[in-house]
Amino acid sequence: MVSETSAVRARLRNLGFAIGTMETGPENAITDVPGVLVGHSTLIRDEPEVVRTGITMVVPREGVWTDYVHAGSHVLNGDGEMTGLIWVAESGMLGSPIGITSTSQVGMVRDFLVAETYRLGVRGGFHLPVVGETWDGWLSTPGSFPLTSEHAAEALGSAVSGPVAEGSVGGGTGMICHDFKAGIGTSSRVATAAGMPFTVGVLVQANYGSRPDLRVDGVPVGREIGYDVVPSAWRDPPVGGSILTEPPDGGSIIILIATDAPLLPVQCRRLAQRATVGLARVGGYGHESSGDIFIAFSTGNHLGGPHDVPYQVTTLPLDSMDEIFHAAADATEEAIVNALCAATTMTGRAGHVAHALPLDTLVEVMARHRTEAERS
Amino acid sequence: MVSETSAVRARLRNLGFAIGTMETGPENAITDVPGVLVGHSTLIRDEPEVVRTGITMVVPREGVWTDYVHAGSHVLNGDGEMTGLIWVAESGMLGSPIGITSTSQVGMVRDFLVAETYRLGVRGGFHLPVVGETWDGWLSTPGSFPLTSEHAAEALGSAVSGPVAEGSVGGGTGMICHDFKAGIGTSSRVATAAGMPFTVGVLVQANYGSRPDLRVDGVPVGREIGYDVVPSAWRDPPVGGSILTEPPDGGSIIILIATDAPLLPVQCRRLAQRATVGLARVGGYGHESSGDIFIAFSTGNHLGGPHDVPYQVTTLPLDSMDEIFHAAADATEEAIVNALCAATTMTGRAGHVAHALPLDTLVEVMARHRTEAERS
Amino acid sequence: MVSETSAVRARLRNLGFAIGTMETGPENAITDVPGVLVGHSTLIRDEPEVVRTGITMVVPREGVWTDYVHAGSHVLNGDGEMTGLIWVAESGMLGSPIGITSTSQVGMVRDFLVAETYRLGVRGGFHLPVVGETWDGWLSTPGSFPLTSEHAAEALGSAVSGPVAEGSVGGGTGMICHDFKAGIGTSSRVATAAGMPFTVGVLVQANYGSRPDLRVDGVPVGREIGYDVVPSAWRDPPVGGSILTEPPDGGSIIILIATDAPLLPVQCRRLAQRATVGLARVGGYGHESSGDIFIAFSTGNHLGGPHDVPYQVTTLPLDSMDEIFHAAADATEEAIVNALCAATTMTGRAGHVAHALPLDTLVEVMARHRTEAERS
Amino acid sequence: MVSETSAVRARLRNLGFAIGTMETGPENAITDVPGVLVGHSTLIRDEPEVVRTGITMVVPREGVWTDYVHAGSHVLNGDGEMTGLIWVAESGMLGSPIGITSTSQVGMVRDFLVAETYRLGVRGGFHLPVVGETWDGWLSTPGSFPLTSEHAAEALGSAVSGPVAEGSVGGGTGMICHDFKAGIGTSSRVATAAGMPFTVGVLVQANYGSRPDLRVDGVPVGREIGYDVVPSAWRDPPVGGSILTEPPDGGSIIILIATDAPLLPVQCRRLAQRATVGLARVGGYGHESSGDIFIAFSTGNHLGGPHDVPYQVTTLPLDSMDEIFHAAADATEEAIVNALCAATTMTGRAGHVAHALPLDTLVEVMARHRTEAERS
Repeated sequence: MVSETSAVRARLRNLGFAIGTMETGPENAITDVPGVLVGHSTLIRDEPEVVRTGITMVVPREGVWTDYVHAGSHVLNGDGEMTGLIWVAESGMLGSPIGITSTSQVGMVRDFLVAETYRLGVRGGFHLPVVGETWDGWLSTPGSFPLTSEHAAEALGSAVSGPVAEGSVGGGTGMICHDFKAGIGTSSRVATAAGMPFTVGVLVQANYGSRPDLRVDGVPVGREIGYDVVPSAWRDPPVGGSILTEPPDGGSIIILIATDAPLLPVQCRRLAQRATVGLARVGGYGHESSGDIFIAFSTGNHLGGPHDVPYQVTTLPLDSMDEIFHAAADATEEAIVNALCAATTMTGRAGHVAHALPLDTLVEVMARHRTEAERS
Repeated sequence: MVSETSAVRARLRNLGFAIGTMETGPENAITDVPGVLVGHSTLIRDEPEVVRTGITMVVPREGVWTDYVHAGSHVLNGDGEMTGLIWVAESGMLGSPIGITSTSQVGMVRDFLVAETYRLGVRGGFHLPVVGETWDGWLSTPGSFPLTSEHAAEALGSAVSGPVAEGSVGGGTGMICHDFKAGIGTSSRVATAAGMPFTVGVLVQANYGSRPDLRVDGVPVGREIGYDVVPSAWRDPPVGGSILTEPPDGGSIIILIATDAPLLPVQCRRLAQRATVGLARVGGYGHESSGDIFIAFSTGNHLGGPHDVPYQVTTLPLDSMDEIFHAAADATEEAIVNALCAATTMTGRAGHVAHALPLDTLVEVMARHRTEAERS
Repeated sequence: MVSETSAVRARLRNLGFAIGTMETGPENAITDVPGVLVGHSTLIRDEPEVVRTGITMVVPREGVWTDYVHAGSHVLNGDGEMTGLIWVAESGMLGSPIGITSTSQVGMVRDFLVAETYRLGVRGGFHLPVVGETWDGWLSTPGSFPLTSEHAAEALGSAVSGPVAEGSVGGGTGMICHDFKAGIGTSSRVATAAGMPFTVGVLVQANYGSRPDLRVDGVPVGREIGYDVVPSAWRDPPVGGSILTEPPDGGSIIILIATDAPLLPVQCRRLAQRATVGLARVGGYGHESSGDIFIAFSTGNHLGGPHDVPYQVTTLPLDSMDEIFHAAADATEEAIVNALCAATTMTGRAGHVAHALPLDTLVEVMARHRTEAERS
Repeated sequence: MVSETSAVRARLRNLGFAIGTMETGPENAITDVPGVLVGHSTLIRDEPEVVRTGITMVVPREGVWTDYVHAGSHVLNGDGEMTGLIWVAESGMLGSPIGITSTSQVGMVRDFLVAETYRLGVRGGFHLPVVGETWDGWLSTPGSFPLTSEHAAEALGSAVSGPVAEGSVGGGTGMICHDFKAGIGTSSRVATAAGMPFTVGVLVQANYGSRPDLRVDGVPVGREIGYDVVPSAWRDPPVGGSILTEPPDGGSIIILIATDAPLLPVQCRRLAQRATVGLARVGGYGHESSGDIFIAFSTGNHLGGPHDVPYQVTTLPLDSMDEIFHAAADATEEAIVNALCAATTMTGRAGHVAHALPLDTLVEVMARHRTEAERS
């Protein structure tokens, strides 16, 4: 039978568990990186067609349109889209907010951000914005294209620092991860590099993975919370809905990594790849049909303004990256788990039900595998 | 004074010149590759704002939505966008038409192609279509977003084999190349590989380069046809228009290479890079602000259908690629020149005038540098 | 005090544990892939300088010099060397044995393999062989260059199918992983893809990682077996030896993945990247000073012979890769653990001691975290 | 009949021609970049086997072992080897001299450079040196491995600033380019970027291309100087030697680009790719069997020393790269032509004769295609 998931949800740390031993920032969120803003636009409606979708915007910093950040990306498995990465790779810079939404409407959100450069009168504007996606077509009607530029404007306009709403919000609204309801999750770490403290923040839109592969801090949670405990989103018999006899492995995850550590583009690319480490530990394999696309940016330098002469940027020493790497991997792992912990059970189109990860069972399973002392 | 360019334009070969010594296909166009279709939608209007834009669609083959082709891409300079390349790199396949349009509306064309998969009821459809762009904002009002999905549908719906309209049509409508009016150009070659004849076809949307760098078959045409002969598009004094005292080097070029030679993805990627060779010979440097993005696809295999078991694909032997490479480089060079030869002088927003390459002067310059015998 | 490690060592499965639920091949080794051969040359001596080094050769198949396999590579962190990867990336093929050795002598082994093509009279031979390395300078005298082409010949000449020696042998002789003595490890899985069984085999030369990060099947073994239980190789006070007050995080790992599944080059590259998943689960972060370099090859096609005409190769359907990916990740994880389980405590130069992972403690820790039922 | 090539050779500019309009540095050589040193070791002997080979060393700056430079690489066609590029890509840095030699002995030169770090007592030394190659086996006995670490030491020890010997010296000794004798060539340009002058220097080891494709400043020199004028190296009937009825297209070219412009790694990589532009204009296609591998480094920053805190590096503004790019392309083109102009006819093993490009004929052909005024 279905484990009842109350509206009261928690983050992993509220349940008494954590990933790794590093300290988090004050909000344990990507917004702990000074200047980073997050906004959501969530669209849930049942008429004229069932829609469970939205847009999340992550703003590297106020004024990013002309005050670029260094950036780099990595792809674990490329069955997905993130626009703008060609220019990020070439220039090593990012000069736009990052949008995340559903697969079908990446283009709309991308064009909206281009329009913003004109609306704002940005000279020499960054016309190659970065917008990623994952697929929400199991809960939200595929081919319905319900989002408009107004939703994109709402997500961007509502972007703020401080706590970040997680779970079924914004681009994460219709997402399913390891066969539990998921969506947006975030986490952060404070890392010491070259003798100084820096913050690394991660935000994920998690929509990948199979149930049995789910692990939390190494504990095989997905094996323990089987389909007899919580039905599969893909096989739960709805009235008149579709059924997949075999839950799919695929899906996608977008991972954004922000830091105020002053990194060069080549260092941002390295950082982006460390998302793989956190993802793998939760149970990601980079499945064939998964778009596992990661981007990392550093706010530690101010670029893109009118430079008439060679100018200076700050970099971390080559051999001081390890704690930054650990921070990214650990925060990625925790951000995914937070997405699972935050999301509540959702019924979507055709009666499809994506069940939340039952927190009481999670706690019970974790406790069985970890002594108090081990809870890092 | 301005060299008068009559409406009567020609292709390079009509002028008595050619690039290289290989034979062309019957149309000297990308459509010489059996099954490849090209369609344009051209939007030219002066109200409510001046618009000189459009969309070009290249269909690898009828039924590409489910009958994928192998593909690979290469970037010379990445100040541009081509969506879908992450999945092309991962899968080695392409399952959608390729759109080319203006920078601002890449997203709209991309989402249109996604919508097509739903309209057509393509199961497991290719939701990561490939759409590239170059910037037409000198002639067409920037920030006006005049194209709609109807234009995209028109470009796709009108895609046919046979001769391809060149110059200021489709996505090439507002484009300027080496400071002459340009746009779409195409060319093809018949190459022998592994003892068999194959066709290599190229289509470009050319919008890059500075005047002095232009060469045709090595002849320094751009140095010879100076600003005293044909004014710069960027400095020609319009009434109340903008003037750039220095013509920009930048701009972009999208290059599509099609072949019926049976290539694996890794071979398509190699082929895509050879566009650089042809582009460099015309005078491309991969300028800082240029989006020089190339994609090559091979129709020599049929993929993506319901394969329940391992299946066979055909490949060229490793050491048989050279003539294919030559064909791609030569056809790229000629396609760019064809874009220049086909386009007529265009007046755009703010009185900006992009002048056509004067064909009589071109012939005169070429003749001065090449004896009859040398005309390959 | 030092936990005594008897000469009696075991593989993970002999201890009653396993990684994942997939079946292994008969030897649980890379040699389970039909045709793959492994040979070692181990050089341990104390005069004239202390040497703990060697060479391991993995032969994709007898006759690989002219009967190429498809291949692809991936780098998690690139502080390492693997020669030949430029040509592997370009051609998608591998036509030589793969050598693994110490950092200083990669070149010697590489040139030895070139010389082999001349000795064997291979026409059009593969002169760009693949040789990787990790650094054994903590146990073996740095800058001593003790290996010769005779050792390379011994490793190659002794390559056989069947069981593979693990631990401190061949290229793995002087290696340390997660601050325990390690070296060569191997594992395999049988995966079903497109309805057919295929074998995926992995061989690692493991020389990376910090103690606290070590996990076995998710269990935090490294935190449990602290420095009070087993001293650090870097801090154990030798007589007159060097001491690092802080164990280094760095080091490197070379991971080779073999399969008889018929993969195209693009699929081999994808497979190579899945080594990251297994590595991350054991505790690899891709540390700054780590050379985490992976290569995957497929014996499922026969290439490189005299092809005068286009020829056919077999490929797995695009959507049948997932179980192959799982196999690679799981076998990588188990191969690393096998390297740890096989290696015995070694004393090297300057009295440096690298301690073996105590198997009795490992079993105790694992048992505490896993019920009998959970042991997959 | 054979055009007699006197021992008196010249550089392109001595003949009254130049590539492009930019100024060169004082020596028109890579050594115009302050601090860059070049040394050669040339080995020519007829007993016990015919040897025409050598090693060239390019030192980015005195003390590069601990005072790293930023670097990046690009591959046009990867049938070649350049060791160390994995670490260059990861770190964006180069901390060793660059060696160039024959294909068979890349490993020896690479290990020699590793040994140098020990000999010099470089702490934390750069153990992943960069060594490239091209194949000299038509003139020098294949499989003979005549070079030793003494030759490598000679090349490194003789590295100086000032004029650079070109043609059949060092690594270029046995090389053939566009079916004329070639080898080492160099050129430089002074570019203005962000209002300041910087030098871009190029050194090539040219060993690629077919005769008919050779162009000098766009003039089809290779078509004009046919096999009736100068015999092919591959078909010239020696006494008892091998004959190829068809000259091969293949071969390779290593291109090194140095600059004192302060570039980040991402900018070095972009610069390296511009070698393609110059190479394409001379007639390179990136043939199937060619190893066209390029590396660019910038001496404008001092890295790799003991940085305990974040430190600053200087970069060019994003939009100031174009003249640097032009400089690299033009200097590459001229360096290749200089290699051809400098080399004299060489007879090698089996009576094989590689003929020099006849300078008088070159001048005559160029003059026929270029008016005095056009000679840039």
